[in-house]
Amino acid sequence: MELLAADKKYFDEKVENYPWPTEPSGLFDPAKYLLSLGGKRIRPLLCLASCNAFGGDREIAIHPALAVEVFHNFSLMHDDIMDAADLRRGKATVHQKYDVNAAILSGDVMLIYAYKILMQLPQQYHTPCIAIFNKMAEEVCIGQQMDMDFEVSDTVAIMDYLKMIELKTSVLLGASLQLGAIIADANETDANHLYQFGKNIGIAFQIQDDLLDTYGEQAAVGKIIGGDILNNKKTYLYLKACQLLSDKSSAELVDLYSTKDAEPQTKIDRVKQLFKDAGVKIYAEELKGEYKNLALSHLDMVEGVNAKAKSQFSSFADYLIQRSV
Amino acid sequence: MELLAADKKYFDEKVENYPWPTEPSGLFDPAKYLLSLGGKRIRPLLCLASCNAFGGDREIAIHPALAVEVFHNFSLMHDDIMDAADLRRGKATVHQKYDVNAAILSGDVMLIYAYKILMQLPQQYHTPCIAIFNKMAEEVCIGQQMDMDFEVSDTVAIMDYLKMIELKTSVLLGASLQLGAIIADANETDANHLYQFGKNIGIAFQIQDDLLDTYGEQAAVGKIIGGDILNNKKTYLYLKACQLLSDKSSAELVDLYSTKDAEPQTKIDRVKQLFKDAGVKIYAEELKGEYKNLALSHLDMVEGVNAKAKSQFSSFADYLIQRSV
Repeated sequence: MELLAADKKYFDEKVENYPWPTEPSGLFDPAKYLLSLGGKRIRPLLCLASCNAFGGDREIAIHPALAVEVFHNFSLMHDDIMDAADLRRGKATVHQKYDVNAAILSGDVMLIYAYKILMQLPQQYHTPCIAIFNKMAEEVCIGQQMDMDFEVSDTVAIMDYLKMIELKTSVLLGASLQLGAIIADANETDANHLYQFGKNIGIAFQIQDDLLDTYGEQAAVGKIIGGDILNNKKTYLYLKACQLLSDKSSAELVDLYSTKDAEPQTKIDRVKQLFKDAGVKIYAEELKGEYKNLALSHLDMVEGVNAKAKSQFSSFADYLIQRSV
Repeated sequence: MELLAADKKYFDEKVENYPWPTEPSGLFDPAKYLLSLGGKRIRPLLCLASCNAFGGDREIAIHPALAVEVFHNFSLMHDDIMDAADLRRGKATVHQKYDVNAAILSGDVMLIYAYKILMQLPQQYHTPCIAIFNKMAEEVCIGQQMDMDFEVSDTVAIMDYLKMIELKTSVLLGASLQLGAIIADANETDANHLYQFGKNIGIAFQIQDDLLDTYGEQAAVGKIIGGDILNNKKTYLYLKACQLLSDKSSAELVDLYSTKDAEPQTKIDRVKQLFKDAGVKIYAEELKGEYKNLALSHLDMVEGVNAKAKSQFSSFADYLIQRSV
């Protein structure tokens, strides 16, 4: 990915050498550990790419770039407790490696550090950047709450599911781009269009995630195919199938999702057959395409970015939603 | 308390009617619940009193006042999970009334709201207020981590214990006063002196807390006298006794603090006898007095506050550290 590759080495070096305090180690080691597990660093690299597209200085954009990465890892640390997840990026989650208290308090201090890092920006950027950050951070919490609520609710409207993935994962992509634009002194309209580009491509990205979990190649995806089905996760595929299937088939699907005791492969196969009967894969592909087009229409409206940079953002969008991993 | 009484009704009305979103209720109800339990509201009232002493406008000071109260309750919500506490202000803690996940995520959103509320200040106050807030918030996390570390460490230096109470509880009192001064356009030196006043009186307050837990009147304090002893809490009294007692008596004290199975009253009585042998109560009273004097010397150096207001702050200091509850 040309768009993200440009600053990857620069960002990796910055995040790896971030001067976390050494003491108390119980507070800061979990933060350093989680950040050291790597990942694609999509959010900070989008922030740097956005700054670059508007001719800004990456030595300034590095602050919001670090802030969004630290915030993202804070949210992973706390979400992993809530989801009782054992693994993150193939390694032990923080609450597994340390303990729940460490994951709570270290997550808290990471959230505070995200603000501390933003405050290293030149003063004229404090107000706009912290306002963007606050809005995004609250929305991410709301998204996580909706996700948890959906787990225990009988019915979830597709509209609410789409709102949940928008808040839980997509607004952070949008805000990362917007912050990069703001500190490059882009005008507000352009920064908003880039936010909308990031947000909508993020929703498409999440629909792709749902698709991969059910239809991906295990070797490529690197996790068990059908995990969402086994965990009774109410994804777009499930919700759309419930809507489209006959009452009888829909009831069977709901019934299959009411237990975790079924023989795994039998359950996956039967659910996939019901998904096929409903034709939901096509609907998901179409919906993904709609969000992608909406994203591209916002990209198109950005005035302060040249055609070459726009084509890089467009390629990034393709990469994100056509990826097989 | 004249100092705090002036704005109590004003603040209570503001905090009770704060416009939290109604949905998702799982995210915001725990925040509203904890804030509704009341408490003395010392921190926000100090913020308002400080603003008032410098002739500032309480309609502006209400923002940092609300922010410090929301932050304080965020930290209580998460600390109560970490300390496995069942009760807070005589009612169920959030993780007991709802669940641990609710207490984690609702706490997170409260921390974000503290920043959101600060951003409602006129723009010229954003940078100084958020900088003060960030420093304080990080220090509170460090204090909580030190407190947890002390629980499992064999030896704790008295200096480290005093640092812990400074960070965990006192810097928030200092920052509350400092924020009130800043938004009343006090000069930086005055704001710092008021911060030091609050911080040092906070340390004296915590030493008084330790004293009350061991020497208070149960009816007045409203909780079991000797709770710290039964929980093997390494307070100033314990640490000073270890330092002053003979090797043999010190070993006995350490031994008494190595179990939670002893018969409660027998253990309390024996530990109190050892405290008496060491004469630690006097040391604690003296140390408390030293911090109070240090606090008052900073109050004395404040230039932009008149004698009448200073005497109210001084009375507040007396109230805080001579209280029996």
